Amino acid sequence: MTSLTQSNRNTRPIGVFDSGLGGLTVLTELRRQLPKENFVYLGDTARTPYGSKGPKTIARYADECIKFLQTKNVKLIVAACNTVSALGDATLNRDKTVPVIGTIESALKEVAKLPDCKKIAVIGTEATIGSKAYEVAFNRAMPDLQVDSLACPLFVPMVEQGILEGRVFEVVADHYLERLRLIRVDALVLACTHYPLLKSALESYLGSEVVIVEPSKSVAELVTKSLEETGLIGAPSGDPTMEYFVTDEVSRFDYLARLFLQNEEVQALRIEDLA
Amino acid sequence: MTSLTQSNRNTRPIGVFDSGLGGLTVLTELRRQLPKENFVYLGDTARTPYGSKGPKTIARYADECIKFLQTKNVKLIVAACNTVSALGDATLNRDKTVPVIGTIESALKEVAKLPDCKKIAVIGTEATIGSKAYEVAFNRAMPDLQVDSLACPLFVPMVEQGILEGRVFEVVADHYLERLRLIRVDALVLACTHYPLLKSALESYLGSEVVIVEPSKSVAELVTKSLEETGLIGAPSGDPTMEYFVTDEVSRFDYLARLFLQNEEVQALRIEDLA
Repeated sequence: MTSLTQSNRNTRPIGVFDSGLGGLTVLTELRRQLPKENFVYLGDTARTPYGSKGPKTIARYADECIKFLQTKNVKLIVAACNTVSALGDATLNRDKTVPVIGTIESALKEVAKLPDCKKIAVIGTEATIGSKAYEVAFNRAMPDLQVDSLACPLFVPMVEQGILEGRVFEVVADHYLERLRLIRVDALVLACTHYPLLKSALESYLGSEVVIVEPSKSVAELVTKSLEETGLIGAPSGDPTMEYFVTDEVSRFDYLARLFLQNEEVQALRIEDLA
Repeated sequence: MTSLTQSNRNTRPIGVFDSGLGGLTVLTELRRQLPKENFVYLGDTARTPYGSKGPKTIARYADECIKFLQTKNVKLIVAACNTVSALGDATLNRDKTVPVIGTIESALKEVAKLPDCKKIAVIGTEATIGSKAYEVAFNRAMPDLQVDSLACPLFVPMVEQGILEGRVFEVVADHYLERLRLIRVDALVLACTHYPLLKSALESYLGSEVVIVEPSKSVAELVTKSLEETGLIGAPSGDPTMEYFVTDEVSRFDYLARLFLQNEEVQALRIEDLA
């Protein structure tokens, strides 16, 4: 009986949420590194983007996303949205029923892996950069590291329109990042889950001497650690399941999701309202 | 008694709403042409933008905005958002308690004023252009007019970041409108309430032979007509009042509103939730 109960507990899905599509870059990495786990994804597409909104509004939306995923019996939640993660662990884990993992600690882990990294820049939405959450976390964990941060608010709508390179990208990148080319950083942290789709364009723009850091890579490590600590790591049983929920109409999500999931087709379900 | 009651009815405010800031361009024109009227403005900034969302979600949001303004005892409502207006009068006026005026009829009126206009282009959000509402309305009212329409989704976030001209504008304009320079239209209809802030940049970009049409100019004429028909035109009494409500935090709205209101300062009130 005990082992069956344990197995049932372990096969509960991992919940992943974002304001919209960006979290799919984190989901892809989680599925790659945790192939036996079941997942439930929530994209709050009816209220996207979060990155241009105020902290109280973002906190309310995050609470509602977390509550929705709890109704899906998840064993752990990933806030696959840097704007939400910038609210801080204390806010995200206020209700202690299910652990919520954000993206800040994974950004620290990824940067810590880099040899000879003295100067970095963090790019993200207005809300993420305005919160200074990444700067504070880096300053605390790596006091000798020099950290610059820059908001790039047009990058999200560009990615959502499939503008991933070319002249528009170049000029907008110049608008936000020209200074970075001058001050010469060792690494650029992509503190927005949309930005991995701009990775190769950013590499060309900044040159190969700048390492592009994707925090999503380490999220799966943190999730694995948390599941191991609580004895909830996925039990090997059947094919893993994958469910997608969105708050706006599904057609645009299903279409754009392919851009984020290397052409995998998805069929999302619409939920009318999270509030 | 009758005349007092009549005067009370007439001094009820006019409600104006938009997903965010864009509607302020319409409000400015309304206040200019109807200086004795009281106004209540609602910007649904916690869920902005509407233009990238699906028609059912937009219709639900519009209903909630209309219901909120009705609690403010408004005598008439202006949907100062082309994305909402594209839902059509039948949808907006489903609940017949207070008339709701959109922007499509005013676009027709403005174009009808132009001499020798044979070919136009309409630009707007993805939702507005995808609805084909403007094309259908122009085809019905002016069957000989040639109408092209183009979505320019980056224009709204650009305006909201104060990018109203310069290299980013030029390149993004090229991305969306290069074709327009080739097919040579007589007029360009700004079917998004954010776009008037790009008017002078668009004039330089397209050349002075293309007339830029702002539907907001005629909205006030339609409002006046409707108020006259229902006997609700503003009674001359004291200084007109102006109230602003937003759903996200007020600071960003108050700051950006100045861009739209020629540096007039506003102090918005936050309402937690429209739903």
